Amino acid sequence: MHELIEKVFFGAFDNAVLRRAEDSAVVEQGGTRLAFTVDSYVVSPLFFPGGDIGKLAVCGTVNDLCMVGARPQFLGVSFILEEGLSAEVLRTIAQSAGETAREAAVEIVCGDTKVVGKGAVDQAFVTTCGVGTVPSGVDISASNARPGDKIILSGSLGDHEIAILSAREGLPFSGNVASDCAPLSGAVAALLAEGTPVHALRDPTRGGLASALNEIARLSNVAMEIHESAIPVRPEVAEACEILGFDPLYLANEGKFVAFVSAEHADAALGRLRAVGCAAQAAIIGEVAGHGLPHVTLITSVGGRRIVDVAAGTQLPRIC
Amino acid sequence: MHELIEKVFFGAFDNAVLRRAEDSAVVEQGGTRLAFTVDSYVVSPLFFPGGDIGKLAVCGTVNDLCMVGARPQFLGVSFILEEGLSAEVLRTIAQSAGETAREAAVEIVCGDTKVVGKGAVDQAFVTTCGVGTVPSGVDISASNARPGDKIILSGSLGDHEIAILSAREGLPFSGNVASDCAPLSGAVAALLAEGTPVHALRDPTRGGLASALNEIARLSNVAMEIHESAIPVRPEVAEACEILGFDPLYLANEGKFVAFVSAEHADAALGRLRAVGCAAQAAIIGEVAGHGLPHVTLITSVGGRRIVDVAAGTQLPRIC
Repeated sequence: MHELIEKVFFGAFDNAVLRRAEDSAVVEQGGTRLAFTVDSYVVSPLFFPGGDIGKLAVCGTVNDLCMVGARPQFLGVSFILEEGLSAEVLRTIAQSAGETAREAAVEIVCGDTKVVGKGAVDQAFVTTCGVGTVPSGVDISASNARPGDKIILSGSLGDHEIAILSAREGLPFSGNVASDCAPLSGAVAALLAEGTPVHALRDPTRGGLASALNEIARLSNVAMEIHESAIPVRPEVAEACEILGFDPLYLANEGKFVAFVSAEHADAALGRLRAVGCAAQAAIIGEVAGHGLPHVTLITSVGGRRIVDVAAGTQLPRIC
Repeated sequence: MHELIEKVFFGAFDNAVLRRAEDSAVVEQGGTRLAFTVDSYVVSPLFFPGGDIGKLAVCGTVNDLCMVGARPQFLGVSFILEEGLSAEVLRTIAQSAGETAREAAVEIVCGDTKVVGKGAVDQAFVTTCGVGTVPSGVDISASNARPGDKIILSGSLGDHEIAILSAREGLPFSGNVASDCAPLSGAVAALLAEGTPVHALRDPTRGGLASALNEIARLSNVAMEIHESAIPVRPEVAEACEILGFDPLYLANEGKFVAFVSAEHADAALGRLRAVGCAAQAAIIGEVAGHGLPHVTLITSVGGRRIVDVAAGTQLPRIC
């Protein structure tokens, strides 16, 4: 996917903003810095423990805006629906999107609907786009991680992917694991309070924490170390991973982020973060070791060291 | 569709901006008026005379921004692709989107790609979103048409829908009719030059001119008259309509607009508009007769009068 994007899309659309490869584009507009992002959601099934495609689509776009430090303001939502989809299903998805938008204090101000014939789309796909403003003084980028930065993870890994898998395949963890799908605006605001110099943010969605960290390592040209024992994973998720042969570092999340913060501000930032519901389990999981030869090293629970590579292929398709 | 949108989406997302039902939302942001829009494209086939889904998706979003008088600036593009779609097809679509963006002087600054399994989507769907700024002094809204306004149509009707139909069904008009698919930014800029007070703009896409005019009549609470003899229709399109039993007033266009302009400025505006390539055939096709009881009357070529209603159902699905 990464190669496809690089070759086809960068080739066709090439410009400096796109090449920055942030979760949202940040562009200058009339004296303010505008954040702008779009994502399509094709999750299957449409409904899962902890959410549905409507909630997921709003959270995903709100969170992509948050990851460049923007205050999310306005969303657009576009539906592609299969002929014959029940009005009740559509109403539930739309209500869920609307409620999540209100929770995140954003307004859905534009939208579109296309209905296609039976078999031309699997039930319903949703595309959301969003705009927000980056406050002055905020300078967050996946290219800005610096040696000495502490790495804060906002909560436990893997809940979303295990919830989707359980719902899709009817696995027995089903009842216990709910998606972490949530808007991160409140948590990011808490992190940024008191002018805390946050250097980089990313939400570990497709490809999980491993991919998010490797992306930041590559773009910032730094090496980092994370400590297995410090990374929160719920027991039900750990158990599911053991049975299925999954690594929690590669599992998708929809309500978590990693933050790179100067060491001297990390403890205070962590304290504020833990006061926010969805980040109660936040932890410092590692640090940036130094410049050059971008890579991520995991210090295992028993003291071993291994390189954490980017995900090769997806563990599970149609997860978001 | 109109009923579905009203009931489900206005219910779930309700806010004043959405209720205005413009082609783009216009919101206040940091002292500037930001225009913001999103649309999904599901056209079949992906390639047709005069364009492809990539060009169409960029034009559609650029044009929606133009219809509120905004200067289009930045686009986002999101692809949903069927597993196994050829890289060559994807590259051609992306190149076409990129070229159209450059033609319209907008930058594609964000995007997303999801690949779904065979059969979960019909080849490729594209969703585009866009932002632009509304210059100060411009006040264009589908609610602003006024008695006495002249109605300018920027060119001939129906080329896009007949081109799609021909390409899909292999009909014999195929070689002669190409989609009018084009970015309207240049034409709208010409219309707005010299501070011309343009009151309303709309591009007659799905549902055609009949639906666009009825929507403006309803939102502006006015009655209008249009003259059949003044409405440009290419002979090949007229012929296709006769054979297939279509009414050109209901055919979709992707590079045309109607403008409502004060009578005293209409001739000058028309002159400037005709100097722009895609609007060379622009014509004054009618006028706003008065306030109250919103409706559209067609004065036929032989002098008869008939009410032009909104389209009931689509003549052709998956046209955009």
